[in-house]
Amino acid sequence: VHTLLQTLSDIVGPSHLLTAPELRARYETDCTGRYHGHAHCVVRPATTAQTSAVLAACHAHRCPVVPQGGNSGLVGGAVPHDAVVLSTERLNRLSPIDTAAAEVVAEAGVRLEILQNACQAAGLVFGVDMASRGSATIGGMVSTNAGGLHVLRYGSMRAQIIGVEAVQADGTIFGKIPGLRKDNTGYNFPSLLTGAEGTLAVVTRAHLLLHPALPHTCTALLALADIESAVILTAHLRLHLPSLHALEIFFAEGMHIVAEHFQQSLPFPEEHSTYLLVECADTTNPLAQLAAALTRPEVQDAAVAEDSVGRERLWRWRERHTEAIRSIGIPHKLDIALPLRSFPAFTREVHRQIIDIAPHAQTILFGHIGDGNLHVNILGLSPDDMTIDEAVFRLVSSYGGSISAEHGIGKTKRPYLLLHRSSEEVSLMRQMKEVFDPHGILNPEVLL
Amino acid sequence: VHTLLQTLSDIVGPSHLLTAPELRARYETDCTGRYHGHAHCVVRPATTAQTSAVLAACHAHRCPVVPQGGNSGLVGGAVPHDAVVLSTERLNRLSPIDTAAAEVVAEAGVRLEILQNACQAAGLVFGVDMASRGSATIGGMVSTNAGGLHVLRYGSMRAQIIGVEAVQADGTIFGKIPGLRKDNTGYNFPSLLTGAEGTLAVVTRAHLLLHPALPHTCTALLALADIESAVILTAHLRLHLPSLHALEIFFAEGMHIVAEHFQQSLPFPEEHSTYLLVECADTTNPLAQLAAALTRPEVQDAAVAEDSVGRERLWRWRERHTEAIRSIGIPHKLDIALPLRSFPAFTREVHRQIIDIAPHAQTILFGHIGDGNLHVNILGLSPDDMTIDEAVFRLVSSYGGSISAEHGIGKTKRPYLLLHRSSEEVSLMRQMKEVFDPHGILNPEVLL
Repeated sequence: VHTLLQTLSDIVGPSHLLTAPELRARYETDCTGRYHGHAHCVVRPATTAQTSAVLAACHAHRCPVVPQGGNSGLVGGAVPHDAVVLSTERLNRLSPIDTAAAEVVAEAGVRLEILQNACQAAGLVFGVDMASRGSATIGGMVSTNAGGLHVLRYGSMRAQIIGVEAVQADGTIFGKIPGLRKDNTGYNFPSLLTGAEGTLAVVTRAHLLLHPALPHTCTALLALADIESAVILTAHLRLHLPSLHALEIFFAEGMHIVAEHFQQSLPFPEEHSTYLLVECADTTNPLAQLAAALTRPEVQDAAVAEDSVGRERLWRWRERHTEAIRSIGIPHKLDIALPLRSFPAFTREVHRQIIDIAPHAQTILFGHIGDGNLHVNILGLSPDDMTIDEAVFRLVSSYGGSISAEHGIGKTKRPYLLLHRSSEEVSLMRQMKEVFDPHGILNPEVLL
Repeated sequence: VHTLLQTLSDIVGPSHLLTAPELRARYETDCTGRYHGHAHCVVRPATTAQTSAVLAACHAHRCPVVPQGGNSGLVGGAVPHDAVVLSTERLNRLSPIDTAAAEVVAEAGVRLEILQNACQAAGLVFGVDMASRGSATIGGMVSTNAGGLHVLRYGSMRAQIIGVEAVQADGTIFGKIPGLRKDNTGYNFPSLLTGAEGTLAVVTRAHLLLHPALPHTCTALLALADIESAVILTAHLRLHLPSLHALEIFFAEGMHIVAEHFQQSLPFPEEHSTYLLVECADTTNPLAQLAAALTRPEVQDAAVAEDSVGRERLWRWRERHTEAIRSIGIPHKLDIALPLRSFPAFTREVHRQIIDIAPHAQTILFGHIGDGNLHVNILGLSPDDMTIDEAVFRLVSSYGGSISAEHGIGKTKRPYLLLHRSSEEVSLMRQMKEVFDPHGILNPEVLL
């Protein structure tokens, strides 16, 4: 290891090779507080060429490398275990926004919020948004195929990518920047690297497409009697509101936790079981469209906002879930996807099964119902006890759902991959991993 | 070969194993008329299980297999050379449209037009449309990552896919139907198989997402002074018309050929060099938006249509290019992508270079300018002389463009793959091909 550290120091300069425990610490623990590890060092290359040299050196030493962006992942995918942490924080250049092409090139370490601000100034938007925008980086978002709030409008991260530049385990640089919106010339590496969780290559730059900003946005919070109503309404809205921009679900439990933690008074005079947050955005004001949807029989009560203050007030009920839950304890956070029609049966069953196993556990559900994506947060479990996680994953699997909608497999879900992917597929994945990373140095603790 | 034919006959039944030359003929020649080959037989499995058995048998005999859908490809990608043709025409079941989920499952042999009609009846649309809709099949469209008219609105075929079921060379079935809109559980096989041109696996079923139908459509044909104006206007429209649904370009040469072949009188009193076909579609009438764009200084003349008869009349100028060109001769058809800003320099230069090499050649350009995609059609060349093709590909490459925007590499562009993809990438592709198809039986003459 000592020789390797010297080589790495020569590549990036001594001030960008962190070896002291107090400097390494923030790269060794993840944002959930559940995962801690040990890094030989943290290396911070400033260019693709330096990234290539770093990987070539680690490859020669057969030393594991864990790529790390904003360290905001939720499945332990960037926590080192006796590995070199390759931090992308100095790969932080953003090209000028090309407004004529509606495109931009971002290095891996650019934070989402920086990209969003640059787009906004140019009258454009980036298609992926999520609560971790202040820390999440483009490289991490590519590697996890980040989803978030607007997948139903713009698709996930994979759909935003025109081109990717990446470095293989042995230091070989491949991919093309700038890329082209249409390019059918063999196997598509940008799609493959998206969601590969840093196990095939280290993404260094991404060429991203942007969308015209939509000047009119309306938001409504709808109170419903039950989740069956939410499913019916989701299907209706998806079909009849082409300006639908976000469609989020949460429940009375979550509403009460947020109200309590943030000392907010509840938005409706009556109690309701289920809430939908509906957002429409368009070139003309979509309020009339949205208002028409509110006359549906499923809607028991509704609050609508057109101005940004009012809209933010409605969004808070949804976005403050994470912080309010965290104020009570460290939850197990399970991110799952289901066919829409299975939502009612699944939510009933998941509450029942959790109570059966852990009578004192508290289960809070919320998520992106427009994409069939539910976040199952469970409080009152010991951090390492995976009994309930496994029970939930098995339940999801029995409904034809996925054990990871948008967070990835990481370390957390690695033991359960075969609940969702066939052994034939996992075997193909292993063989593909060998092609890109024959010594298995890239993020060896995650996914496979 | 005799033993193999007997085995295949046992799998699909003798009436679905075509060996007689007159029955094989239509599978041995492609729709461009440029490619002819020889098939040992044509085998038509009716199920995924039969497809698996067919591939296992061919794999055991080390016999090449060429998957074939509608045989409407333009790069010779489905023409057999002493191979078994695996026709997907009996894999033609379409699930009922799931309107609540806005999803459908189609077997590989379902023709695009059949899918479109089923969607229309359900108030939904499929995101990919193209002139070959009557013959192109879903399996072929997945394998070529079909693009077409609405990529700027909905993305290409890859963006429409929720899940894919496929069969590896040795008969192993993999993939998941139904899939899930959000599913981050390792390497994404649907994306990888999309555009792989049948070299990695045979796609048997696809789970596709659908979009709400947009009730109001307006179309305009714009006459411009030059291609510089078209580039400026394209950038403007993309930024200011979020309802933009199609944006096509063609030129005076093509306009005159169509007018002559179809005996149509020209749409404008004056001569113009460059034409844009602009289509907007929205929930409310986008005419006012579109009309505002027509006041731009680049627009010399314009015709607008809101009703379907008038819109179709405008579209004909664009869609009849292929037939009108074919009436003159068999063109070399080069499908390329370019950065938008390179369109003016490229079009000038490509005309000049072609005339330099072949003074009597006639060059007609048209394409999807909204995606940076241009179809270069050249008449008056001998079918097998690739001198001009290669010159055009080199020119495209010098502008950072792609030698295939949407048609794929196939047989035609195989010798030029390295003009666009690096040797490192081609090496990765070869190794991935070996993982999926160790004996190299799947479509061995194309791509790699």
